[in-house]
Amino acid sequence: MNAIVNRQFRLAARPVGLPRASDWSLVEEPVREPGEGEFLIRIEYISLDPAMRGWMNEGKSYVPPVAIGEVMRAGGAGEVVASNHPGFPVGSKVSGLFGVQQYAMSNGKGVQRVDTALAPLPTYLGVLGMTGMTAYFGLLDVGAAKAGDTVVVSGAAGAVGMVVGQVAKILGCRVVGIAGGAEKCRFLIDELGFDAAIDYKSEDLRKALREHCPQGIDVYFDNVGGEILDLALAQLAMHARVVICGAISQYNATDGVKGPANYLSLLVNRARMQGMVVFDYAARYGEAAREMGAWLADGRLKSREDIVEGFDTFPDALLRLFRGENTGKLLLKVG
Amino acid sequence: MNAIVNRQFRLAARPVGLPRASDWSLVEEPVREPGEGEFLIRIEYISLDPAMRGWMNEGKSYVPPVAIGEVMRAGGAGEVVASNHPGFPVGSKVSGLFGVQQYAMSNGKGVQRVDTALAPLPTYLGVLGMTGMTAYFGLLDVGAAKAGDTVVVSGAAGAVGMVVGQVAKILGCRVVGIAGGAEKCRFLIDELGFDAAIDYKSEDLRKALREHCPQGIDVYFDNVGGEILDLALAQLAMHARVVICGAISQYNATDGVKGPANYLSLLVNRARMQGMVVFDYAARYGEAAREMGAWLADGRLKSREDIVEGFDTFPDALLRLFRGENTGKLLLKVG
Repeated sequence: MNAIVNRQFRLAARPVGLPRASDWSLVEEPVREPGEGEFLIRIEYISLDPAMRGWMNEGKSYVPPVAIGEVMRAGGAGEVVASNHPGFPVGSKVSGLFGVQQYAMSNGKGVQRVDTALAPLPTYLGVLGMTGMTAYFGLLDVGAAKAGDTVVVSGAAGAVGMVVGQVAKILGCRVVGIAGGAEKCRFLIDELGFDAAIDYKSEDLRKALREHCPQGIDVYFDNVGGEILDLALAQLAMHARVVICGAISQYNATDGVKGPANYLSLLVNRARMQGMVVFDYAARYGEAAREMGAWLADGRLKSREDIVEGFDTFPDALLRLFRGENTGKLLLKVG
Repeated sequence: MNAIVNRQFRLAARPVGLPRASDWSLVEEPVREPGEGEFLIRIEYISLDPAMRGWMNEGKSYVPPVAIGEVMRAGGAGEVVASNHPGFPVGSKVSGLFGVQQYAMSNGKGVQRVDTALAPLPTYLGVLGMTGMTAYFGLLDVGAAKAGDTVVVSGAAGAVGMVVGQVAKILGCRVVGIAGGAEKCRFLIDELGFDAAIDYKSEDLRKALREHCPQGIDVYFDNVGGEILDLALAQLAMHARVVICGAISQYNATDGVKGPANYLSLLVNRARMQGMVVFDYAARYGEAAREMGAWLADGRLKSREDIVEGFDTFPDALLRLFRGENTGKLLLKVG
């Protein structure tokens, strides 16, 4: 065990704007033996999520910030390789918040065992992981989507967006995705069965939303903020629900967040805009996983991962999210 | 009847920014005899409301805009002086959307008979009128306020705000009002019993909100928008409700509405922001009027009107709202 070296990305500085290489330090340290009730995980996949950018900032949020010098927080999945914990024997496949490192020591808190006979390991970081749970509870619980609704989702080809749209289709909604680029739009329509996809980079979004949502938007699921949120607000239907899941367009802003100037559309349309954090639904993850697992099994729900190889590429791999380069759930493969 | 001349303010032009005298035309026309099923109202009080500014704009909203050349839309109260309608005999006191004029002809649609033995006529345009109904349903239905909540209301000394705060106190909430000027703040505390009042013109609002809402804001009832909305968002408690009732600071903006840059506080705090239009509650006005009428009668709820005299002063009287000069419900006395 003393021979094993753990490589870790630790936060070296709080980024201003997009995180730079100098905001990270790559540290090596020996792996110790698991103590009583502990087990060691060899991490195979690290989840790369827009929320990680927020965790790097100082200040009050829904979780404490990552401290300077601390291993960067991240979801991950891997295999138990040494164990003094009866619930997690060697060979178990597990997921949890393991951090951006190659090995993690755990006492089992917040760690889930996963069954790779039912779905491959990466899926437990995507459709059956935090991003899938976010989509499921955001759409159903916060968005209160129901058959016949027109559902619009931004960041539609991202990890959360692709699940939002597919679950909405399963519910019987009309689904319009907003994504950047023709390839992502083709993916949404041809592979995921969205009713329409709008390429915000090349189309007039205002006009396209009017065209694809002639009765207005009943549920707008927002992952991006900024101008796209504003244009969606302008097209709300009466009693619409706006789910605030994220705001990736704003996370690296250095001159302040752009507030939605069209927020008075909430008044005109008696609509609501509501924020969510998936951790609040922890007690119901099982319910969502069972339902989405069944949809995955019968082919109604598709998983898609965008896997970047090589642990050391982490600083640049993370930026793929903010450059809009990923389609589906972005993962870093450690091996 | 032919001798009676009706004076009317008609919309002459769509204002840019604050309405100017040239945006109105003062028209005189003879009053005709009521036809079958009609009655004539001599208007005694005209309700002056921030929402009127929105009605002067072109474009989609919750009601159609007032057309150029049309009598300006406004609530009012007065007496039936000629009638061919059995439900509204001569001498009845009534309220309704009578317009900015001295006489209105009606077939009874949307007109309420009011009992001036229970409350004076102006109260039926304030606490027992649209602004009271707005406060009641906005706080209880949209804001879901309950005993123990910290409720913050902006425009607190205005027609809606003063009722919001008083009803919240009756419910058992801790109530903090935001208003402009020391005199209004004294009114809120000394006369209406608010727990605290913040003068946004002379105090550091961010600091004052932190001080007066140490556990955060559970219900924020917004009448003003702009910077005040943003600072309130920054101080939300978990699961807070933000009621979007109006945005008086933005109605005359010529360079676009300022969106709330702190809207991501909705995410961090799993909070919701919801718009409302009082007309949706028409079927339940009676319920609210009975409850608020009882509170008025036993002195727990106070009415306050700010009455400007003289029909012809209308263009300037309306601007008192946007200059923050009124305390309580602003009315124009016609006589």
